[in-house]
Amino acid sequence: MSVTAPAGFSAGTVAAGLKSQGGPDLTVVVNEGPSFSAAAVFTSNRAKAHPILWSEQAIADGQVRAIVLNSGGANCFTGPEGFALTHQSAEKLAEALGDASASDILVCSTGLIGELLPAGALITGISQAVALRDSSESSGGESARAIMTTDSKPKMAQVALTTPSGVVTLGGMAKGAGMLAPGLATMLVVITTDALLEPDQLDRALRQASEVTFNRLDSDGCMSTNDQVSLLASGASGITPGIDEFETALRALCLDLALQLHADAEGASHEIAIEVTGALSDTEAVAVGRSVARNNLFKAAIFGNDANWGRVLAAIGTADASFDVYGVDVSMNGVRVCHEGAPDRPRTEVDLTPRKTHVLIELHAGDASATVWTNDLTTDYVHENSAYSS
Amino acid sequence: MSVTAPAGFSAGTVAAGLKSQGGPDLTVVVNEGPSFSAAAVFTSNRAKAHPILWSEQAIADGQVRAIVLNSGGANCFTGPEGFALTHQSAEKLAEALGDASASDILVCSTGLIGELLPAGALITGISQAVALRDSSESSGGESARAIMTTDSKPKMAQVALTTPSGVVTLGGMAKGAGMLAPGLATMLVVITTDALLEPDQLDRALRQASEVTFNRLDSDGCMSTNDQVSLLASGASGITPGIDEFETALRALCLDLALQLHADAEGASHEIAIEVTGALSDTEAVAVGRSVARNNLFKAAIFGNDANWGRVLAAIGTADASFDVYGVDVSMNGVRVCHEGAPDRPRTEVDLTPRKTHVLIELHAGDASATVWTNDLTTDYVHENSAYSS
Repeated sequence: MSVTAPAGFSAGTVAAGLKSQGGPDLTVVVNEGPSFSAAAVFTSNRAKAHPILWSEQAIADGQVRAIVLNSGGANCFTGPEGFALTHQSAEKLAEALGDASASDILVCSTGLIGELLPAGALITGISQAVALRDSSESSGGESARAIMTTDSKPKMAQVALTTPSGVVTLGGMAKGAGMLAPGLATMLVVITTDALLEPDQLDRALRQASEVTFNRLDSDGCMSTNDQVSLLASGASGITPGIDEFETALRALCLDLALQLHADAEGASHEIAIEVTGALSDTEAVAVGRSVARNNLFKAAIFGNDANWGRVLAAIGTADASFDVYGVDVSMNGVRVCHEGAPDRPRTEVDLTPRKTHVLIELHAGDASATVWTNDLTTDYVHENSAYSS
Repeated sequence: MSVTAPAGFSAGTVAAGLKSQGGPDLTVVVNEGPSFSAAAVFTSNRAKAHPILWSEQAIADGQVRAIVLNSGGANCFTGPEGFALTHQSAEKLAEALGDASASDILVCSTGLIGELLPAGALITGISQAVALRDSSESSGGESARAIMTTDSKPKMAQVALTTPSGVVTLGGMAKGAGMLAPGLATMLVVITTDALLEPDQLDRALRQASEVTFNRLDSDGCMSTNDQVSLLASGASGITPGIDEFETALRALCLDLALQLHADAEGASHEIAIEVTGALSDTEAVAVGRSVARNNLFKAAIFGNDANWGRVLAAIGTADASFDVYGVDVSMNGVRVCHEGAPDRPRTEVDLTPRKTHVLIELHAGDASATVWTNDLTTDYVHENSAYSS
């Protein structure tokens, strides 16, 4: 599991003293080669943290030697000093590796916005993490734990892709328990593979996979300033897989991580899959799903185990999509409660006590479909987010 | 106060047995003439309740004799039977008045979506309400109480407009404690005036006034299926005021009602005014304000009396507006906590214990400004909306 599963990757983790509660909070993931192809996608929020502004430049040439990630502070809206610290982090990591330049380094930070990280602790931690790094499975696991903020557990995944020439491995880790909104889905994700691929192949595959996985998570509609999903390819397997097969494997890995994020969303008591069928296009299907995923009244009803389908219809009526609201069917956990915009089975027949909740919205307007994943709006969500902590 | 304040209006209210908790739940407001000019604006949700579909047709000729409003059921997504009941309500009211046709009647309903109202009780209630109607102040107050759902108090307002020919009066009532989102602002509002004006004058004035009052309330981002704001003019004063003066008076009345709705939003512990200055246009100022008003993380922070300005910047970064996020200043209750996208005064200096909260966002991009009103996201909000009740 995790980022050290593919050949050619090492990871090192330390407790640098960035998190007030202590524990591992800084990790480096190093591509040991022989190839250094990479791709990354970033938050579409225009309010971008310093590490995002840095990494957008660093990824431009498609070459990445290593990535440093810290929890305990987002380094966002921290002024010129904050950007200098991001720059310095990249330089320190490059220097510690000995054979890299700062422009080959990606930087990720997560935590509170508007507070400077302690520069000395961060820089010292980077040197220590590099020195400690190895390619063991446990190092990958420690990396995944170091990037946790309000996550209750680390998120890791692994996929093996069998090719005529042998097996290619993909590994990944993710963090993100709040602000799981698209564009992309507010998270830090690092994916590694020992496949031998070009940067533009990685870039296309990563964008496609993100679009149907991370970008369809919409836990609370809030978009982060620090989202970054990176894909590093070491080429250490010596195998160039078929690109279609690689894309499929990457999508499976991303979906695995996305659903782990979904299951661990802050304060949630339901994991809600909103499946929209019969839309005119994928985009419209997603728009309809998202309108429900962002409706606080619907989300509060699910928290109350209440199959309030009227709130589903009220929500989709605001979506930018073509369909007749009086032709829509809505089912919850297999019970069709609304048929053609009118009551069908009694809502009391719906059992909403299971954590996993399925809402099916049949638009009957076309052939496209999509699933958007969200969570319920709970008193715990409000509690967790009403203290100054994230 | 209320709808009977202007000359030429009467109101009658009964407990028709539509509300499970009992109490007055059906009211009629009758324009006794001599003029019957009217205007109305409706929810922009495409999921429209039967009374909206009806009233959109009825208002087309700019003539309204009376309006019937009920709480206890939204009559939305109730199938053909539901629409027939709306039609029947208008016919019964016209018949009871004796000198009107159904096409001169507006219908408003509020309450649960997807459940049929008891037809017999509703129709009987309409006849009784018409028979009971009078133009007393208390009748106007009873009307305002009859349309309450989760409102904790009735909302009424009155404005006197002095003209060279004498005084013109405007009166109004409103209901709406949840789903206060724009387009318009999820509510039932009836405004009356004894001014002598043409339907197109009323229409223009009502749209302008709604745009800067009801449409800038965004309590929880959820848009209703039943919103309707109606303006009836009896001409009973015999006075045609200057249109600018009338528009100003109408805007004042709408603002008064809007802020009463704001103050009574479901479960709220803070009334938040988000003032955006320095935008390129009014539209962009509103878009920026709304992005904050709809950010659950920001709203939860305010509930926790936490001046988490990072969440303000993260929210506005998603708004469709032109400005430099690293040039923005943010103040909360008079303390500038962010200057040019970096920390300014310590957030601990902000006192968020008062119920009224002011967030000032200075974009420094242009000269336009707007205020959007919202509320915090509280555990009470989640509680109130997690039981099947609205």
